[in-house]
Amino acid sequence: MWTFDNPPVKILQEKYNFVPTREWLDRVRLASVRFSDGGSGSFVSPNGLVMTNQHVAVGQLQKLSRPGKDYVAEGFYAARPEDELPCPDLELNVLVSMEDVTDRVRAAVRPGMTQEEALKARRAEIARIEKESLEKTGLRSDVVTLYHGGEYWLYRYKRYTDVRLVFAPERQAAYFGGDSDNFTYPRYDLDVAFFRVYENGRPIRSEPYLPWNSAGPTEGELVFVSGHPGSTDRLFTYAQLLYQRDVRYPLLLRSIDRRIQILRDYARRGPEAARQALVQIFALENAQKALTGEYQGLLDPVLMNKRKQQEDEFRRLVASRPEWQQLYGDAWDIIEEVTRQQASVLRHQLFRRFPGTRLASMALTIVQYAHEIRKPDGERLEGFRDAQLERLRFQLLSPAPVYPDLEEAVLAGLLQMAQEELGPDDPFVQAALQGRSPAAVAREVVQGTKLADVKVRKALLEGGLRAVQRSQDPLIVLARRVEPVVRETLEWVRKNVESVLTPATEKIAQARFAVYGKSVYPDATFTLRLSFGTVRGYPMNGTVAPYKTTLYGLFDRASSFDNRGEFELPPRFWERKDRLDLSTPVNFVCTCDIIGGNSGSPVINRNAEVVGLIFDGNIESLPGRFIYDDTKARAVAVHTAYIIEALRKLYDAGALADEIEGRR
Amino acid sequence: MWTFDNPPVKILQEKYNFVPTREWLDRVRLASVRFSDGGSGSFVSPNGLVMTNQHVAVGQLQKLSRPGKDYVAEGFYAARPEDELPCPDLELNVLVSMEDVTDRVRAAVRPGMTQEEALKARRAEIARIEKESLEKTGLRSDVVTLYHGGEYWLYRYKRYTDVRLVFAPERQAAYFGGDSDNFTYPRYDLDVAFFRVYENGRPIRSEPYLPWNSAGPTEGELVFVSGHPGSTDRLFTYAQLLYQRDVRYPLLLRSIDRRIQILRDYARRGPEAARQALVQIFALENAQKALTGEYQGLLDPVLMNKRKQQEDEFRRLVASRPEWQQLYGDAWDIIEEVTRQQASVLRHQLFRRFPGTRLASMALTIVQYAHEIRKPDGERLEGFRDAQLERLRFQLLSPAPVYPDLEEAVLAGLLQMAQEELGPDDPFVQAALQGRSPAAVAREVVQGTKLADVKVRKALLEGGLRAVQRSQDPLIVLARRVEPVVRETLEWVRKNVESVLTPATEKIAQARFAVYGKSVYPDATFTLRLSFGTVRGYPMNGTVAPYKTTLYGLFDRASSFDNRGEFELPPRFWERKDRLDLSTPVNFVCTCDIIGGNSGSPVINRNAEVVGLIFDGNIESLPGRFIYDDTKARAVAVHTAYIIEALRKLYDAGALADEIEGRR
Repeated sequence: MWTFDNPPVKILQEKYNFVPTREWLDRVRLASVRFSDGGSGSFVSPNGLVMTNQHVAVGQLQKLSRPGKDYVAEGFYAARPEDELPCPDLELNVLVSMEDVTDRVRAAVRPGMTQEEALKARRAEIARIEKESLEKTGLRSDVVTLYHGGEYWLYRYKRYTDVRLVFAPERQAAYFGGDSDNFTYPRYDLDVAFFRVYENGRPIRSEPYLPWNSAGPTEGELVFVSGHPGSTDRLFTYAQLLYQRDVRYPLLLRSIDRRIQILRDYARRGPEAARQALVQIFALENAQKALTGEYQGLLDPVLMNKRKQQEDEFRRLVASRPEWQQLYGDAWDIIEEVTRQQASVLRHQLFRRFPGTRLASMALTIVQYAHEIRKPDGERLEGFRDAQLERLRFQLLSPAPVYPDLEEAVLAGLLQMAQEELGPDDPFVQAALQGRSPAAVAREVVQGTKLADVKVRKALLEGGLRAVQRSQDPLIVLARRVEPVVRETLEWVRKNVESVLTPATEKIAQARFAVYGKSVYPDATFTLRLSFGTVRGYPMNGTVAPYKTTLYGLFDRASSFDNRGEFELPPRFWERKDRLDLSTPVNFVCTCDIIGGNSGSPVINRNAEVVGLIFDGNIESLPGRFIYDDTKARAVAVHTAYIIEALRKLYDAGALADEIEGRR
Repeated sequence: MWTFDNPPVKILQEKYNFVPTREWLDRVRLASVRFSDGGSGSFVSPNGLVMTNQHVAVGQLQKLSRPGKDYVAEGFYAARPEDELPCPDLELNVLVSMEDVTDRVRAAVRPGMTQEEALKARRAEIARIEKESLEKTGLRSDVVTLYHGGEYWLYRYKRYTDVRLVFAPERQAAYFGGDSDNFTYPRYDLDVAFFRVYENGRPIRSEPYLPWNSAGPTEGELVFVSGHPGSTDRLFTYAQLLYQRDVRYPLLLRSIDRRIQILRDYARRGPEAARQALVQIFALENAQKALTGEYQGLLDPVLMNKRKQQEDEFRRLVASRPEWQQLYGDAWDIIEEVTRQQASVLRHQLFRRFPGTRLASMALTIVQYAHEIRKPDGERLEGFRDAQLERLRFQLLSPAPVYPDLEEAVLAGLLQMAQEELGPDDPFVQAALQGRSPAAVAREVVQGTKLADVKVRKALLEGGLRAVQRSQDPLIVLARRVEPVVRETLEWVRKNVESVLTPATEKIAQARFAVYGKSVYPDATFTLRLSFGTVRGYPMNGTVAPYKTTLYGLFDRASSFDNRGEFELPPRFWERKDRLDLSTPVNFVCTCDIIGGNSGSPVINRNAEVVGLIFDGNIESLPGRFIYDDTKARAVAVHTAYIIEALRKLYDAGALADEIEGRR
C-alpha cells in the first residue's frame, strides 16, 4: 500500500525488473477515482466512463430505485447517453497533487505548549492549510496524516458531483453467493458497475484513462492495484492490539449483530420493506464478516506473537541508542495508558450517534453545524472545517429518498440498544428519552419531522443557530437535547485520548524512520495507494485454490445448490447459457495488498492496462488489517474477459463493451 | 460404525422414523464385500458384479499392467465377458455369519495365571475356535476383538479368489485433482471400478445384491454406508493419545516422508520406472495426508481437551461406585505405563520389517513361516495360525510381476533409514548389513535372488525349515539373519505390551459397558459396519460447501488450472463434452461416519438401493480417527448419476450401465 510519492521502485526493479516511470505513475494516479463515501474506481474510456463494483454502486442504485423499479435487484443499462441516470449524492475525487506539509504542521507546535494546546495548534494549522489551498485552487484540499503522524501531506482532489449511472447487473449476478461467499474464493461474481462523469451537462474528457485488456492476466504475472484502502492497523503497538482484541471488537461485533437484527425484523414486514433495508443489511453483514475475520486474527496466538516479537525487536533497537531511547522510549507505555482511557469511553462513542439512520443523523449534524460554524475554523469538530463544508452540504442536501418507517424502526432499535448498553441513567439516554420508551420517542420524532424535505433541511442550514434553536421540528428538538452530550464525549476524547495519543504515535513514527528508514509504507487512510503482486493460487483447506475461475464454475455453484437462495442465477444466465463460452475466466486472485475501500480498484499490468477489477479479499486476507502475509491472503478480482462476455452476450450492451475495448 | 449384531435401531427410529428389519440388515450385509488387502465393495447385479473405487482397484490394475499397457493410466473396459481380466492376487470376502465367542475366549484364562500365561491361553483358544470353524464350514474364520477386548466374535467369510476386472476409468478421471484434492471437497472424481466374481470358471449368482438408483440421493435424505472401516482410536485413553501425538505420529510421518522420497528418486529414472513406482507413491501420499490431518487433530487443544473431559467424567463415574473402582480403577495408570514401553520399542517395530518391498518382505515371511509352522497353533505369530495359512499362501504365491530395480532401490533406502534411525550397533542393522553399505547389500541380494519366480517361493514354502536353512538364495540368507532379531522384538512386545495392555483395555471396555451400557459402537477393526447420516453440505473456509457437485464443476476445475498437471482431464472428456449433461451430479457429501477401509463402500437409501459410492472423507473428517463430530466432517461419494452418465457417454460401456441399472 505504497503512496505515490514513495513507490517501491527498488523492490520492483530487483524482483520483477520493472521500473515504473514518473509518467506511468502520474497516468495511473490521474486515472484512479475515489468514491468519497467509500470505494475506488478508474476511468476506462476517454469519455468519463468510470468502472467500479456493483457493491460500491449499490447505495446509489437503491437511492435511484423506487417501489416497483428496483435497480439493485434488476440491474440497469443505459443503451443511449440520454438514458444515463444522474445519481443523487455521489461524489468522485481524483488526486491531482500531493504536497508534503509536515514541517509546516510541526512548526505550529511551539515549545512550552501543553499537549492540549499543541493539539489545538496543529489542528488550527491544518485548517489554515486546507482553507488556503481551497481558496487558491478551488480543489478539494485535505491534509492527510501518514505514518500515524510521521508525515502530513496536503492532497488536492478534483471533485465531480454530476455522476450518472450507465450499467449495473442484477445483484444476483454481481453478488452471486451472497453473504456466504462474501470474502471467500473460489468466486464467480460479476461485481461491476459503470458510471459516467459529467461537467456542465456533458461527459468530461477523461485523460488519462486506463486502456482495456480483454485477455486479462496470465498466471504468475506482475500486476498492480491502484485504489483507496480504507484503514489498516499494522503499525499499532501491541497494547493497542490487545485493546482491539479485548475491548473494541467484542463490543463492535455485538452492536452490529444487533443492528442486523433490527433491520431483518423490519425487512420481514414485506417485499417493499425488504427492498428498503437490503442495502444496509448488506453493508452490515459485510462489516460483520470482515470484522469477524479480523477478530480471528487477533485471537490467533501465532499472529499476535509475531507482532509482539516485532515490537520487542523494535523497542530493543530504540533502546540500543541512548538518544533514541531518550526521544522515543516512553511512547509505548503512554499508548498503553491511553488504551485504558479509550476503553472507558468506547461504549459512549458507539451508541451516542445515530448510525444507520438518515433523518436522525442529519438532524444531529444540522445542530452540530449550527454550533461549530461559529467557532474559529481550527477549533471545530472533524468534518466541520471550512474546507469540508461543501461536501457536508452536498450530503445534507441530497435528494435521495427517505423511508420513514425504516427510519423509525432503526432509531427505535438504536435507542433501545443505547438504553441497554449505557444504562437508563446515562446522560445521552436521559436526554434522548426523557423517561419515555425508545419506541414512543422514535415514533413521535420520525412521524412528526419534516426533515425528509430537502428544502426544510436547507432552510435550517442557512438559518444558522437561531433557526435551529427556534425549530419545533421534533427531530431537531431531540438533536438539540443530545448534542451537548455528544459534544462532551468528543471533547473528552480530544483531551484525554487524541492530545496524548497524537504525540506518542508521532514519536513511534519517528523512531521507525530512525531505525528502519522509509522502507515501510504508512497504514491505509482512504488515500490513494499502489499495491503490487502476482496472479497466483494458494493452499486452501487441504488443497489448492486456482489462480482463476471460469463460467463452468459459476454454473456448477448454482447447480450445486439447485439454483436456490444466494446461489440462484438471474434467468438470463440460464436462457443465454448456450451463447456463452463457458471456459471464459470469471474471477482471479493476486497477492496485491488490499483492504476495504479498495473495492472497485482496477488491476493493471505493466502497461497500465486494465486486466481486472478488485472486489474482495479472501477469508485468509482478513487478519491483514494487522499483519500482511501473502502465503494465503489474496485479493479477488473480476476478470476483464468476463465483463466483456457478459456485456455482449448476456446484457446486449455491445455499445458499452465497444467503448471499453476502444472500438469506437 | 455399528456392528450388524447391534444396529442403532433406537436412534434411527427416533430421529428418522426408520426401522431396519432383520431382512434389510441381512441383505445389506450379504451384498457387502471386503477387499482383503484393504477396501470395501458391494454386489450391484445378480451376476457377481462388484463395485468399488478405482483407488481400491489400483493395486490390481498395476499388477495386470505391463510396459506399454498401463491400465492405471489408460483405464480398462471389457465389453464382452471373455475380455474380463483375472486378477493375480485379489481376495474378496463376504461376511456370512457372526457368533459371540466372548465367554469361550474368557473361559480359557484361569485364576492364578500370570498375565503372559493368560495372553497365551487366550491366543490358543482363539486359534482353536478359528481352526474348528474352518474345518467344519470351510469358510474363512476370524475371531475378531471388539471394544478393545470387551467382546470376541467369530466372523465367518465366504472367500472369493477368482475375481476379474470389468471396468476402470483413467486414473486422471478417477483421481482427478490428485494428491492436492485428495481428502478434500468440493470434488469431481469418477473413482469407480467394477470387478466380477467367478467360481468354477463362471460368474457367481450374487444374491442378494443392491439394486441401483440412478437418481441418487436428495438433500437431507437419510443414507447408510455399509463397509469395512480400518481402524479408529476413539476409545483410546488420554495417555494413549499423548503417546500418539508425542511419539508415534512424528516418527511415522518422518518415515513416510522418507519412503516417498526414495520412490520419487526412483521414479525420476524414466517413464517405466515412474509407472512402477506410481501406485506405492499414491498409497504413501494418501497415508501421509491422512496422518497429517489426524495429527492436526492431536495437536488441536480443543479436541484434546474434549477427550480429556470425557475421560475425567468416565473415571469419576467409575470411582463413584467402590465395586467398579475396585474392578476397573487401576486400568488407566497401567495403560499409561504401557505407553512408555511402546515408546521404547516403536522405532524397532517400524524399521525392522521391509515395508514397501515385495521380495524382501516375502523372504522374511517365508523364513518366519518355516519357524512358526513348527509351533503349536496357539503360540504362533499373528498371521501364521492354521486358519490364516490359506490366504498367506495366496499372497506369497501371487503371480503378480516383480520389478527388481524398484525392489533394490526401496530395500537400499529402507536399510539406510534403519541404519540412521536405529544406529550402526543395532542388532537388526548389524544382522542385515554385516558392516557393508545398504546399497551394496540391496544390490547383492536383489540381483542375486530367485524369489521373483513363484516356483522358487513355492518350493521353499513346501520344503519346510530344512529347505529354508539350506537355501543359498542371498535374500533368504539375509532374511535368516534378521529373523531372530525381528522375532525378539515381537516377543518383547507380546510380553511387555500386549500381555499387559490386553487385560487393562478389557477392564476399560467392561467399565464402559457397566457405566454406559452397549450404547457405544466399538472402534473400527476392518470388520463390517453400518453407518448412517444425511446428505448435507457444511460450513467451509468462510462459506458453505454444497451437498453435491456437478459436471460443470469438473470442467471448471480443469479449466481453472488450464487443464494441467493433477487437473488435466483425459482427452475423451473434452472430445465428448457436448454429449454430456453438465448439470449431472458428480460427487456428494453425507454425515456418515467412515474412515480408511470404507473406500468403495456403497451409499444406500432406506430401500437399500445404491445412491452413491464412498471414496473419501473431507479434510475436516481426518481428526475423526480420535473423535467424531459431524459439524464439518463429511464422507465424500461418487453420485450414481455420474457413473451411469460416464459409462454411457464417455466410455461406450452401455452394456455395463444396462446391467447395473437392471435393464438386462
